[in-house]
Amino acid sequence: MDEKSVGNFFEDFRIGQVIKHATPRTITTGDVALYTALYGSRFAVQSSDVFAKNIGYARAPVDDLLVFHIVFGKTVPEISLNAIANLGYASCQFLLPVYPGDTLNAISEVIGLRENSNKQSGVVYVRSKGFNQKGKVILDYVRWVMVRKRDEFASTGETKIPKLLSHVESQQLGTAVPLLKLKGYDNSLSGSNHRFTHYKVGDKIDHRDGMTVEEAEHQIATRLYQNTARVHFNQFAEGQSRFGRRLIYGGHVLSIARALSFNGIANAFHVAAINGGRHVAPLFAGLTVFAWSEVLDCRDIPKRRDVGALRLRTIATKDRPCADFPFKHGEEYDPAVILDLDYWALVPR
Amino acid sequence: MDEKSVGNFFEDFRIGQVIKHATPRTITTGDVALYTALYGSRFAVQSSDVFAKNIGYARAPVDDLLVFHIVFGKTVPEISLNAIANLGYASCQFLLPVYPGDTLNAISEVIGLRENSNKQSGVVYVRSKGFNQKGKVILDYVRWVMVRKRDEFASTGETKIPKLLSHVESQQLGTAVPLLKLKGYDNSLSGSNHRFTHYKVGDKIDHRDGMTVEEAEHQIATRLYQNTARVHFNQFAEGQSRFGRRLIYGGHVLSIARALSFNGIANAFHVAAINGGRHVAPLFAGLTVFAWSEVLDCRDIPKRRDVGALRLRTIATKDRPCADFPFKHGEEYDPAVILDLDYWALVPR
Amino acid sequence: MDEKSVGNFFEDFRIGQVIKHATPRTITTGDVALYTALYGSRFAVQSSDVFAKNIGYARAPVDDLLVFHIVFGKTVPEISLNAIANLGYASCQFLLPVYPGDTLNAISEVIGLRENSNKQSGVVYVRSKGFNQKGKVILDYVRWVMVRKRDEFASTGETKIPKLLSHVESQQLGTAVPLLKLKGYDNSLSGSNHRFTHYKVGDKIDHRDGMTVEEAEHQIATRLYQNTARVHFNQFAEGQSRFGRRLIYGGHVLSIARALSFNGIANAFHVAAINGGRHVAPLFAGLTVFAWSEVLDCRDIPKRRDVGALRLRTIATKDRPCADFPFKHGEEYDPAVILDLDYWALVPR
Repeated sequence: MDEKSVGNFFEDFRIGQVIKHATPRTITTGDVALYTALYGSRFAVQSSDVFAKNIGYARAPVDDLLVFHIVFGKTVPEISLNAIANLGYASCQFLLPVYPGDTLNAISEVIGLRENSNKQSGVVYVRSKGFNQKGKVILDYVRWVMVRKRDEFASTGETKIPKLLSHVESQQLGTAVPLLKLKGYDNSLSGSNHRFTHYKVGDKIDHRDGMTVEEAEHQIATRLYQNTARVHFNQFAEGQSRFGRRLIYGGHVLSIARALSFNGIANAFHVAAINGGRHVAPLFAGLTVFAWSEVLDCRDIPKRRDVGALRLRTIATKDRPCADFPFKHGEEYDPAVILDLDYWALVPR
Repeated sequence: MDEKSVGNFFEDFRIGQVIKHATPRTITTGDVALYTALYGSRFAVQSSDVFAKNIGYARAPVDDLLVFHIVFGKTVPEISLNAIANLGYASCQFLLPVYPGDTLNAISEVIGLRENSNKQSGVVYVRSKGFNQKGKVILDYVRWVMVRKRDEFASTGETKIPKLLSHVESQQLGTAVPLLKLKGYDNSLSGSNHRFTHYKVGDKIDHRDGMTVEEAEHQIATRLYQNTARVHFNQFAEGQSRFGRRLIYGGHVLSIARALSFNGIANAFHVAAINGGRHVAPLFAGLTVFAWSEVLDCRDIPKRRDVGALRLRTIATKDRPCADFPFKHGEEYDPAVILDLDYWALVPR
Repeated sequence: MDEKSVGNFFEDFRIGQVIKHATPRTITTGDVALYTALYGSRFAVQSSDVFAKNIGYARAPVDDLLVFHIVFGKTVPEISLNAIANLGYASCQFLLPVYPGDTLNAISEVIGLRENSNKQSGVVYVRSKGFNQKGKVILDYVRWVMVRKRDEFASTGETKIPKLLSHVESQQLGTAVPLLKLKGYDNSLSGSNHRFTHYKVGDKIDHRDGMTVEEAEHQIATRLYQNTARVHFNQFAEGQSRFGRRLIYGGHVLSIARALSFNGIANAFHVAAINGGRHVAPLFAGLTVFAWSEVLDCRDIPKRRDVGALRLRTIATKDRPCADFPFKHGEEYDPAVILDLDYWALVPR
């Protein structure tokens, strides 16, 4: 048996361990078409070569979250094949544009380990980087995940909880966006007159539409990302689990929420960084996803007069419209909430 | 709230109003592959670069109906987000070939308005045009749609019912087709020996196959077209509607019927114009679509000896094979009929 | 009625008859993206242009089974539209690499006929060849299929059962693979350290993962291949059949099993030949496919020190994990087995 298809268990990880992941992937306009078909995303920069060129890109860049999913997918076989839960992301930065034709691969470093007191599992912290064919880092993020132990009595002998930043600093943002030619940015084509200065801290935006997810859709999406996590595909096994159903890849919810957010922030065309993301509850096929966003911060980016950065909290719910902005009741999330995402989006001025 | 995501209500429209739609779209071979996968279309000209070049195209053109759906999708946010029903199309002309790599956008002009006597809604008539990246009109059509009023007491103050033509004149057809090199047109590869002169007025053709539609399929299709009409995607809301189910985009039926029609009219490779289209009844997932066609007219095109024009009525049904050509009982459509389409197809001589 | 859409019946075939099939198809990166999304295949050579170039290809070649399905799909209208059962494949060779941009078509020759004693049907043997745009044979295989008779009293007047080889000889393999630059073959990126010499006859490999199939998925796949066999798409008709459900295209199972096999044989990147394939039982949507493989033979290829050939038996099952390698009980297949595939894969040394 090839050891890699069994995946790593908690005790297999070591602090400082570096893992070079399979499978390299050339992203194509085929992937882009599928991404559009799966989420219905309408941001003009990613949809039109002409629009993108008019503002300074070489051509339409690949949607940031598609890049994220493809890099993330590569890390699954070694990092999270035996995961119980994907606990969170932090310090995620989109550093360079990715274009169709670019080839991506991924490397992860183990930066933290903490065994659970029940000795059945532990938390693994990794910093993963995505590279293009020139060896340049295009994506850099931290995630932590609860991983099963193979052997209750095994030990990694190491405990380290890395210091995680609450957010990416605004001055670090924007390296993936060329200096924009704002004369080329047409509000009619982009779908909104609302540029950066329209938004202010505390604004709440209902993204209005709802999107029902089918089993075929999330499976097609997750395979497109070559993400092999078993819980998404195997009804025979999952039918015997506590949920009785296949779990939908959390990143699928991320992309649905982002696509829905076009209603209200159509000019927030680039995800520059993800400060933190939490999958509050699982999503299953047949349910309908809604979303709303709150503006947490509005920041200039040093030396850039073309774009500003909005820090947004985007909340996604299941079977619950968001006109009244459901979030938390005291410390507890509203039971309909499935995603709590904190990210920086760039918006032209 | 960005006003655009709320959509226009009947009283927001004005005669002569011109609307430039978001989102521009570069069509790619990825879109073409998805279109093939969604409908199984087999017309050789659109499937093979070699076949297309052999008869005079630069390469395989994009399927006409894919072009239609992409242009149509752009018009939804401003024209039909608050629609009760899409009532019809007319005078739809495919004017230039579209190739992968072309970037499309759309503009609509309001050409008619008529409030309903119940004051709850009204009919909006628009002429929509699709443009390529050179600013050339590639598609031009009229549609009319019943749109809700926001406020019962509001009024547009205008009533105008545009004169709609019963059909596009045959001498206007064919501008999207280069002068064909008929020596390069291989019947074995195209799938039929039946050229233009084989057909005569009154011929009825059962397209034989049936295609069952799944929720995931019509959602993937409709998102591919960046069509955001809510009734297609939101089971949470539609579950509470009179149908209790998501409505399938009418254009999805159009494309299924066209793909099925390969059985019998395999050489009718180009939709030159749609004279009129009526979605007689809604389609829901789980039902099977069948289709048949009748030849309504056979016309020469001035100065063209390479192709002739067939005017076809294509009827699509649900859960009802078409060997006996179901259509109308007196004035009423057979209850199985879902689409009544009148169009011009070009066929090589 | 165009005779071609009715399909051939047993008595329509003649020994030596040559059939040139519609529809030619230009394969694109869009097709490749869909193939990845449908099966989640992770072989590095087909996924990355950079990886492929580093070992000597012009770019990432198209997955062998995608080529097979596209050629196979073309043969359906004339060969198997009226088939009762697809009985088997043999002597299937992948002769040249296929790249995005290549245009494929197909020709079949009838090489055998045998009427069944019940006079209701007969077995048709065909040798089908797929060609690229240069007229080169890229795929060559024999299949036999049980086809209905139109008329019980009709006769072909011919009986011939062709001699079928048990397997393709190993010295014939590898023409579709350039001489590999093994220095460029990176095990970390390919996903396994196991090269050719790691494997030995008798090795059994559980491919571990399970993949549940949805109706939308197999329909999208089968239409992508422009395969029009009615049993896959028409729930209205199939609901009245003995199974009461749509049958999943056997090739869909082939591709699922091949994608799952990455777990254990990640470096077996090329299907060089299919010695024989048998669809032991039908698959229906909602069921989960598992697979395991046994190494039947390990062969050098004359004059090639870069790759060796593994002869593999891959067994796919439904709703039955394969940790204990289910196969046969005496002469009978385990009731969970749906596919028994015997093929040659090439593996770098």
